Amino acid sequence: MSEATYDILGIGNAIVDVVARADEAFLSRHDMHKGAMQLIDTATADALYAAMPPGLESSGGSVANSCAVAAGLGARVAYIGKVADDQLGGVFRHDIDAVGVHFPTAPLSGAAPTARCLILVTPDGQRTMNTFLGACVTLTAEDVDPALVAASEITYLEGYLYDPPEAQAAFKKAAAAAHAAGRQVALSLSDAFCVNRHRAAFLDLVANHVDILFANEAEITALYERNTFEEAAEDARQNVALAALTRSEAGSVILRGAETVSVAAEPAKVVDTTGAGDAYAAGFLTGLTFGKSLEICGRMGSIAAAEVISHYGARPETDLRALMPV
Amino acid sequence: MSEATYDILGIGNAIVDVVARADEAFLSRHDMHKGAMQLIDTATADALYAAMPPGLESSGGSVANSCAVAAGLGARVAYIGKVADDQLGGVFRHDIDAVGVHFPTAPLSGAAPTARCLILVTPDGQRTMNTFLGACVTLTAEDVDPALVAASEITYLEGYLYDPPEAQAAFKKAAAAAHAAGRQVALSLSDAFCVNRHRAAFLDLVANHVDILFANEAEITALYERNTFEEAAEDARQNVALAALTRSEAGSVILRGAETVSVAAEPAKVVDTTGAGDAYAAGFLTGLTFGKSLEICGRMGSIAAAEVISHYGARPETDLRALMPV
Repeated sequence: MSEATYDILGIGNAIVDVVARADEAFLSRHDMHKGAMQLIDTATADALYAAMPPGLESSGGSVANSCAVAAGLGARVAYIGKVADDQLGGVFRHDIDAVGVHFPTAPLSGAAPTARCLILVTPDGQRTMNTFLGACVTLTAEDVDPALVAASEITYLEGYLYDPPEAQAAFKKAAAAAHAAGRQVALSLSDAFCVNRHRAAFLDLVANHVDILFANEAEITALYERNTFEEAAEDARQNVALAALTRSEAGSVILRGAETVSVAAEPAKVVDTTGAGDAYAAGFLTGLTFGKSLEICGRMGSIAAAEVISHYGARPETDLRALMPV
Repeated sequence: MSEATYDILGIGNAIVDVVARADEAFLSRHDMHKGAMQLIDTATADALYAAMPPGLESSGGSVANSCAVAAGLGARVAYIGKVADDQLGGVFRHDIDAVGVHFPTAPLSGAAPTARCLILVTPDGQRTMNTFLGACVTLTAEDVDPALVAASEITYLEGYLYDPPEAQAAFKKAAAAAHAAGRQVALSLSDAFCVNRHRAAFLDLVANHVDILFANEAEITALYERNTFEEAAEDARQNVALAALTRSEAGSVILRGAETVSVAAEPAKVVDTTGAGDAYAAGFLTGLTFGKSLEICGRMGSIAAAEVISHYGARPETDLRALMPV
């Protein structure tokens, strides 16, 4: 196996976030599940946007956020995702270029616009997400270059990729190419509702095609349909070589074979939890490719997450390297 | 004179901000004057954007920011400004609609894009602005409805309107319509370099066409070509019925005839000074239309400014009414 060119290759839905503050009544009025991500069509996106308070726009997308954080930590990172050749697509491309992430995917021209995620942040800092997939539905297996996958130590995929049907083929092609090249595949389960939509496929992926699994408590219990975190965590231990399970302010639990490592959450004043899981995965994967211990990997994840939840927006606003334990 | 429908009608360049952090070396490398606003063309905007770190996008524009703050304080507000019918124009329109500001200006179609201001915030919180005017250069006198001006207690104009040549006619038409209806005209000098570009016109405006003047120390000394703030302030006292002059952390000085009112700055942890002057003017004008004393008007301005400089972006993130002294 040749030396990798990239530490991490991320593949995901390329999205621009629109973040606004809202109260619980706003969520109820618009039938949202607090803390969850729901898919919305153009008409709903327009109506919801019209009803929303003023917003802050910034690049988002779960794995794209992770890529930006990992690049900020010094990892060599590439990203595959589909934007349109419109103004928000230009914003997304600029922001990922600007942190040094290689982003070779050609934009979609003259069709659907760049995806937007309308995010409502309640006074407790929780975010509730409404995604209009736009150009993301045109990501296909053709956008995955097997040579790029083979040149990347870890290919990191998001469960959200199972929502646009064509992207499932891109996901499977990437995972197969990674293993054919002797590389590793990491997966984030993304969202409990997403897990419910694709449980059979995700169970197969985790058991047979994934080396490193990221999930929060709601996602892992949804995957294995368990009542308790402990039961679901044991299922994960049996199913996947390495699992990093996050529990918000209760920290994270890392499972590898018989080994269990518990890592405390980093203290933070919560402003907006958008991107917390993405940042955790980025810190963890960066630590892994840097050859750190599981405990240090977990701490790198916790510290990155703490930075991201201390302000509006899913990408870091400070020099993350300065915050790291090693 | 009939009862006004609006407390404040703002007219200005309608702009979307792109805010990024940068160090002093970045400003030097790109020949920027720290703290100033410079106009840039499309090619420079593209090159500078490509060189900039990741950004946060949000609605901006000096008087538009003031309108958003005033609406947040409960004033009845209308705004005239030119965006394009593109994605960023949609963002601008959404954000000003969402705070309840009446915004009747038709967007520009199929020509220049919505204006962008590339803002670099240095570690000391100072902002340096680079504006690509785009669609703003197509604001004309035709966009000013004299009936709307006549229905507004104060018409608030920004000096920046003198940069796109056609907008000067819009400015003059609005000021004439306001006075013909027995209403008041307020002006912000906007920026010291802008004052230098248009000094003769601004001296005439202030002496003959403006009732309420806003300026910071650099702007008022540039206008009267004085070495000291005190000299320039006395010039303003002679020239205009009411002047509110801001001095950053030294607070503000309000001059009306023989009367002088000094107001302390509100303590704040400075993150990004973008919009400080805009918020001050908004608080002040809102106080004025609510019939408050000059001291209360100044305090309302200082408190609004303190909120806006405590985070990235030029528009408030909290309920300003809850912060007000009365």
